[in-house]
Amino acid sequence: MQRSGILFIISGASGSGKTTLCANLRKNPDFFYSVSCTTRAPRRGEVEGKDYFFVDHDVFRRQIKEGYFLEYAEVHGNYYGTPLQPVKDALVKGLDLLLDIDVQGAQQVRNNPDPQIQRALVEIFLTPPNLAELEKRLRRRATDDEATIQRRLAAARQEMSFWRNYDYVILSSTAEEDFQRFRSIMLAERFRTSRLQLDFE
Amino acid sequence: MQRSGILFIISGASGSGKTTLCANLRKNPDFFYSVSCTTRAPRRGEVEGKDYFFVDHDVFRRQIKEGYFLEYAEVHGNYYGTPLQPVKDALVKGLDLLLDIDVQGAQQVRNNPDPQIQRALVEIFLTPPNLAELEKRLRRRATDDEATIQRRLAAARQEMSFWRNYDYVILSSTAEEDFQRFRSIMLAERFRTSRLQLDFE
Repeated sequence: MQRSGILFIISGASGSGKTTLCANLRKNPDFFYSVSCTTRAPRRGEVEGKDYFFVDHDVFRRQIKEGYFLEYAEVHGNYYGTPLQPVKDALVKGLDLLLDIDVQGAQQVRNNPDPQIQRALVEIFLTPPNLAELEKRLRRRATDDEATIQRRLAAARQEMSFWRNYDYVILSSTAEEDFQRFRSIMLAERFRTSRLQLDFE
Repeated sequence: MQRSGILFIISGASGSGKTTLCANLRKNPDFFYSVSCTTRAPRRGEVEGKDYFFVDHDVFRRQIKEGYFLEYAEVHGNYYGTPLQPVKDALVKGLDLLLDIDVQGAQQVRNNPDPQIQRALVEIFLTPPNLAELEKRLRRRATDDEATIQRRLAAARQEMSFWRNYDYVILSSTAEEDFQRFRSIMLAERFRTSRLQLDFE
């Protein structure tokens, strides 16, 4: 049996448990992780081509124009982007990828006209089960003042409103439950007829 | 969170492990099982309305004409059919159903024009991973003569050619593996955005 690779993207607001889930997924060899480009300076110990490809602003802006990125974002004055070609190469080899991106990045991937990308794409949204739980989580972790908490709550609430754009929604629970739910989706998608090449002759 | 029910149908040729898988799934309370109609005579201990609804040929044929069945089949001169309305009622309540039917029955469900059925439908095909394994399984179980084995092989081979019509294909392995794979698909489908009603306000 042969199958084509799957491009999983996961988004989730602050308090969704996404950071923990992605860390747990990284411990397992289920996914190929592509290396992002960034314009920010390397931190101590970061390795070019392993942690990031470090490029300057001019190069990054030219690459944007050339359609080099599957998705990119500007955060605190620096660019971060996922190069398209390595993703396409991995998919052809039957490798699955996991991209951890926000709702704007997900929208860019969703809008990408490449049919190979669209065929491979599976979008998962992780969210606290309700607003009360969101608030509880943000208050539990934070040493922040009330204004900061309120700002984060508003931002998370806004992100949560995008759930309908995704293929799957996981209402986050414990770290272990979130992990098992994600894995169910991953396994199921591997059994999709549209991705399989079977030959019983 | 509320969600609409899912209508899982599973098909699999002789030697696919489907009988064992369905027996194992029955031990778990994941599904609502609808009661079929049949024209065959009740066997000792079978209870009307529990094991089957027992009806005569004339009634069954009239029901076919009236669109009473989601799918039906004639086997060895008797009719067997799944009434449509109880399936629709269960789906509205958010219950998931499992129908174990052959490729012809699956085709009838696939062709049903009811939008509620189409939205709810998830089709899974269980198959031996290859023809050598199929033959091994048929020979292992059988006290049959060579002609019978050859007839079964040909029939199974023909059924296996329908895999592309389904949403998911499980290449059967051990009973435990098959069970876990089916459950991954079941869980993943429950997280499908299109089936959820979430309200974060």
